[in-house]
Amino acid sequence: MSKPLILITNDDGITAPGIKALVEIAQELGDVVIVAPDSPQSGMGHAITLDSPLRLHKTQAFPTLEAYECSGTPVDCVKLAKNVICKDRQIDLCVSGINHGSNAAINILYSGTLSAAMEASLESIPSIGFSFLDYRYEADFSVARKQIKAIMQHVLTKGMEAGSLLNVNIPHLPADEIKGIKICRQADARWVEDYAEAKDPRGRKYYWLTGRFINDDPGTDTDVAALEAGYISVVPSHHDLTNYKALHNGTLQQLEGKTVVGD
Amino acid sequence: MSKPLILITNDDGITAPGIKALVEIAQELGDVVIVAPDSPQSGMGHAITLDSPLRLHKTQAFPTLEAYECSGTPVDCVKLAKNVICKDRQIDLCVSGINHGSNAAINILYSGTLSAAMEASLESIPSIGFSFLDYRYEADFSVARKQIKAIMQHVLTKGMEAGSLLNVNIPHLPADEIKGIKICRQADARWVEDYAEAKDPRGRKYYWLTGRFINDDPGTDTDVAALEAGYISVVPSHHDLTNYKALHNGTLQQLEGKTVVGD
Repeated sequence: MSKPLILITNDDGITAPGIKALVEIAQELGDVVIVAPDSPQSGMGHAITLDSPLRLHKTQAFPTLEAYECSGTPVDCVKLAKNVICKDRQIDLCVSGINHGSNAAINILYSGTLSAAMEASLESIPSIGFSFLDYRYEADFSVARKQIKAIMQHVLTKGMEAGSLLNVNIPHLPADEIKGIKICRQADARWVEDYAEAKDPRGRKYYWLTGRFINDDPGTDTDVAALEAGYISVVPSHHDLTNYKALHNGTLQQLEGKTVVGD
Repeated sequence: MSKPLILITNDDGITAPGIKALVEIAQELGDVVIVAPDSPQSGMGHAITLDSPLRLHKTQAFPTLEAYECSGTPVDCVKLAKNVICKDRQIDLCVSGINHGSNAAINILYSGTLSAAMEASLESIPSIGFSFLDYRYEADFSVARKQIKAIMQHVLTKGMEAGSLLNVNIPHLPADEIKGIKICRQADARWVEDYAEAKDPRGRKYYWLTGRFINDDPGTDTDVAALEAGYISVVPSHHDLTNYKALHNGTLQQLEGKTVVGD
């Protein structure tokens, strides 16, 4: 039986330590194709490049592997992998990361790492986004090696509902202090932002985003709660943003009669 | 009673005709603040600017109104509006658009227009993204004037569940052929992509995204179905991407025992 084909991408760029850790694990489970941005793309969300051409080059960042760097966003990388590089091959799993920093809770919306995994899921490729709650370049990405491998093995063996992905976050703890894996829902947390305001060398004002993360969600079944308790959080996610509660509560239906309304 | 404060943004840029149409309608309902990108930002999704400073300037694009152009993404515009421009004012409604082109189905993920509305919803500001299925610059944005006003009035009067937004799409039809408003769920449609491959004047290869939209969703209760039947589609949406079906079906829970797994 042929080995599964695993597509690997990220948003920190192809030279980031996090993707290296993921490639090492994936190589134990299948054949690997790497397509990642040629520069950091943090906070790019589900951005795609529409109005300019994309560059795609084979890279020696992983000399023994099939690896490409792309001038676009993480989502562009997945689209090019599916439609150009692996045009005649079936991708069995897409893994994105390991991101340098948390993508728990609403950070899934801002994250290029998770948007790449989401894009793969839109193409019906089972996919997983991995993030580590240690922002530092020198972070030790090996702490959750075994659990990352177990999660990938699980998806390769059991498959995944079409259109689904997993959002996996790893607490910033030594390996022997990680308590295990928890399957959770996305916490309803938020950012409280502030803008640093300053003047550039030419005297023109600029703003720079800063902020702090606040978890108001009292649930013990959330990804943020699991991480705080020392667990690796796994949130099954999808691309259906419909608010079914609001859809069925009847309030909006009052609008349906308003074909013609007066001024 | 003071008039409600309405924040207006878009992703096509502050000079696009679509935002002008929205401003005209909003002015009839409240006080208006406009904060929009200084250049087109289509396809930017939920991207935010983390690694560079943002510029924000008062603009004469709307000479009689409080209007700002911003160097960042649509989400940046909403964050700056909330945290800098309207720091001491309560924003009662955020409207984004009118986008030049559809944001039905999964296009909500790629759309800067809808991501701006989503960002407002994360800040508990009731919000609506409007899109018109006519891509052309000279599109007649007045066709759904009355319905757009009715939807905005509905939200200003009835409010909206915290964390919610409405994704409104308008069919490309003359005003008298629009059948009315339908409250729907997001269609599970997809893009089939293709990349145009060519060489630049220096002989280097590039790729340019093209694609066609496919609706495989057989439901008659979707936004795509409503639009095809001549209705304005309204999808109540939110930021919780948890796949609750996958969360509760028990398969993933098999991972929870795997605190330590062998190689």
